[in-house]
Amino acid sequence: MIYFDNAATTKPDDGCLAEAAQYLTDKFYNPSALYAEGYNLHLELAEARKELLSHIADPDEFELIFTSCGTEADNQAVFCGGRRGNIVSTMGEHAAVYESVQEAGRRGAEARFASLMPDGSVDVSDLLSKVDGKTSLVSFIHVNNETGAVNDVNAIAAKIKAKNPRTLVHCDGVQAFGKIPFTLSQNIDMYSVSAHKIGALKGTGALIKRKKIVLSPYIYGGGQERGLRSGTENVFGIQMFRLAARKSYLSLKENYQKISAVNAALWNGLDKELFTRISPEGGSPYILTVAARGVRGETILHMCDDAGLIIGTGSACSSNSAKRHSRVMTSCGVGDDLIDGVLRISFSKESSIEQAEEGARILNEVVRKDRELTE
Amino acid sequence: MIYFDNAATTKPDDGCLAEAAQYLTDKFYNPSALYAEGYNLHLELAEARKELLSHIADPDEFELIFTSCGTEADNQAVFCGGRRGNIVSTMGEHAAVYESVQEAGRRGAEARFASLMPDGSVDVSDLLSKVDGKTSLVSFIHVNNETGAVNDVNAIAAKIKAKNPRTLVHCDGVQAFGKIPFTLSQNIDMYSVSAHKIGALKGTGALIKRKKIVLSPYIYGGGQERGLRSGTENVFGIQMFRLAARKSYLSLKENYQKISAVNAALWNGLDKELFTRISPEGGSPYILTVAARGVRGETILHMCDDAGLIIGTGSACSSNSAKRHSRVMTSCGVGDDLIDGVLRISFSKESSIEQAEEGARILNEVVRKDRELTE
Repeated sequence: MIYFDNAATTKPDDGCLAEAAQYLTDKFYNPSALYAEGYNLHLELAEARKELLSHIADPDEFELIFTSCGTEADNQAVFCGGRRGNIVSTMGEHAAVYESVQEAGRRGAEARFASLMPDGSVDVSDLLSKVDGKTSLVSFIHVNNETGAVNDVNAIAAKIKAKNPRTLVHCDGVQAFGKIPFTLSQNIDMYSVSAHKIGALKGTGALIKRKKIVLSPYIYGGGQERGLRSGTENVFGIQMFRLAARKSYLSLKENYQKISAVNAALWNGLDKELFTRISPEGGSPYILTVAARGVRGETILHMCDDAGLIIGTGSACSSNSAKRHSRVMTSCGVGDDLIDGVLRISFSKESSIEQAEEGARILNEVVRKDRELTE
Repeated sequence: MIYFDNAATTKPDDGCLAEAAQYLTDKFYNPSALYAEGYNLHLELAEARKELLSHIADPDEFELIFTSCGTEADNQAVFCGGRRGNIVSTMGEHAAVYESVQEAGRRGAEARFASLMPDGSVDVSDLLSKVDGKTSLVSFIHVNNETGAVNDVNAIAAKIKAKNPRTLVHCDGVQAFGKIPFTLSQNIDMYSVSAHKIGALKGTGALIKRKKIVLSPYIYGGGQERGLRSGTENVFGIQMFRLAARKSYLSLKENYQKISAVNAALWNGLDKELFTRISPEGGSPYILTVAARGVRGETILHMCDDAGLIIGTGSACSSNSAKRHSRVMTSCGVGDDLIDGVLRISFSKESSIEQAEEGARILNEVVRKDRELTE
C-alpha cells in the first residue's frame, strides 16, 4: 500500500518507537512521584520540553505545555486566551479552532471569521479589517490542512499587533511543525503543535506560549505542567514526540526538498484533463489537493484504496461532520463542478518519488474508470 | 525493586503491550478516515467502548466517551455538568475534581465541600445537608485515592436523587475501576475512569455517562466521540485500556482476595509501635495508608527507595502543590504528631505476599534507623 494521507496521521517511526519503548517498560513511573525513579522522569520531561521548543522558538522567551493533542492545545488557546470582546479567526481553520471560536461566540464573545483567498490562505486585509480595540484574540492557521497554503504567520502577527498590541495572537501550527522552516517571532503569543503528524503518536500535543503572557489552565487538577495542564504526563507519548521531532528537524531542509520533488512528481504524473490543482504552487509540499471533475471524491478514495493507494478527501476530522462539503473548500470558492471531487494527497518525509509516480498512475486510472462507469 | 506505588501509576502489562503493539505499527490509521483501514479502526473503537462499559454498567443505559485521562474526564463532568446554582463535592476528592469545583466556584457557581470521616470516606449526612434545590451537580470520589476508603456510591447517589432528582451525580472512579466489584446504578449520571491505574497507559481515560443526560463537549473540534470529545482518537492507548481492563475483570474477585491478603501481610508485618493505620479495615485492599510517628514521610520514602522499596507519601499529583500537608489527611483529622509521617502503600494485581513481607521488613528497618539518626 502507498500511504498518502499523512496530514490525517503518520505511521509512527520504527526507530523512535524502539528507543521510546523503555518508557513503557522500565521507566513507567509517575513523573510527579518524589522517589528518584519518578523525579528522574520529571527531569527528562523538562529536557523534552526544552528540546521540542528549541526547534522553532527561543527557549528564553517561550515555554511549552504538553497537552493530549493539537485539538486540546487549540481549545486552551481559544477559551483561555479569548474570553472578552471579539475573537477574530478565519474560514480556513481546522475544526479544533473554528468550532472553539464558534462556541466562544455562543458564550458571549463576538466571533468573527475572515475570508480566504482561492488557495486557502487567509485574506490578510479582511483579517486585519476585523481586528479592533476590543479584539482579545486572533487565531489563524499556519499551514492550511486542506490545501497546504502557508500563511506568513510572523508578518501577519506583526500587522495585528500594530493594530492592537493587547490582542493575543494564536496560530495552529499542526501541519507546519517538523515540516516547513520557520521561527516564531514574539508577535505570536501561542502556537499549537501535534505529535502524530510527524511520526510520533496520537494522544500528544503541545501549546507553545510566550512566557510573558498569563494563561489560565484548561484542565484543572494536580498542577502538572506548572499548573497549566493537569493530569499524569503521557511520558511515552512525549518522548516519542521528542524523538520524532528531533529526527524531522535534523533533516528539515533535505526533507522539504525531497518532498517538494515528490509532490511535483505526483502533480506532473496526473492527467491534467482529469485533475485541477487546488493547492497553491508555493504552499507546503507535504499537501497536494486536487479536484477531479465530474466524480465523487469519496468514490475515488475507495477505488484508490482497492488499487493500493490511500489518500484523503479533506480533513479526516471533518468526516465526522454531517456537512457534505468542506467549509474550507467552499470558502476557497471551489465551484460546484469540482467540490464533490476534491482529493487531498499528503506526504511524510518517508514518501518517495516512486510512490508518487505510482500514485499518479493509480489516480489517473481510477478516475478514468469511474468516468467510464458513470458515462 | 518492589513497586508499591500503584495508585500513582502501574507498570503497563507486558502481554497487553504485545497485543496492542499492532496499533503502533500496522493499524496506525486515523479512525475518522473514510478508507477501509481507517473505518475498521472506527469499528474497533466502538467495540472497545462497549466492552469497557460492559464491565461496570448496562450498555443500554450508559455510554462511554474516551478522554485523555481521568483528570480530563473529571473536568468535563464538573464544568459541563455543574455550571449553575451550587456544586456539592467533598474534602476527600482528588485534585482533578477539587480544583475544578473550586474553579467553577470562581466562575459563579457556589462551591460546597462536605467533610470527611476519619477514614477518608465522605460524611454522608454532611454531604446531603449541602444538597438543595439549586444543586446542579454533586461530585464525590468512589475509592479515596489517599486512604482507600470506599464510598457506597449507589446508596449515596440514591439519597442525593431523593433530595433533588434534577441534580446530576458524578463519581470519580479512578481507583475503583478494575479493582473493586460494583455496577453503576442509574442514580449515577457520570463516572470517570483512567487506564494507567490498571496496567494500561498514561494518556487514556474515559467519562461514562447515562445516555439520557445531555452533556456539552469540553474539547471542541472535529466531532470525534459523537461530538463530545474532539481530537484524533488515541487508538493504541484505548486498545491497551480495553485489554488491561479485560484482564482485570476476568479475575476481579480472585485479584481482590489476593490483594486483600497482600495488604494484610504488609500491615501484619509492620511494627505497631512505629506505625499507625489510617486506611479503614474495610476499604479497597489496593491502598494501605499508614503513618509513622515522629518521622518525615518524604525521608522514609527516599530511604525505602534506596533499600529497594518504592512507596508514596500521598497522591502523586499533589506533589506539585506548594502545600505541605495533604488536604485529605488534614480533613480526616490526622493529627500534628502523625501528619508528617504519612505513607501510602498501594498494590496492583501483580503484587505478592512475599513482596508485602519484604516491604514491611524494609519499612520497619528504615523507620527505626531514621528514628535512631534523629534521636
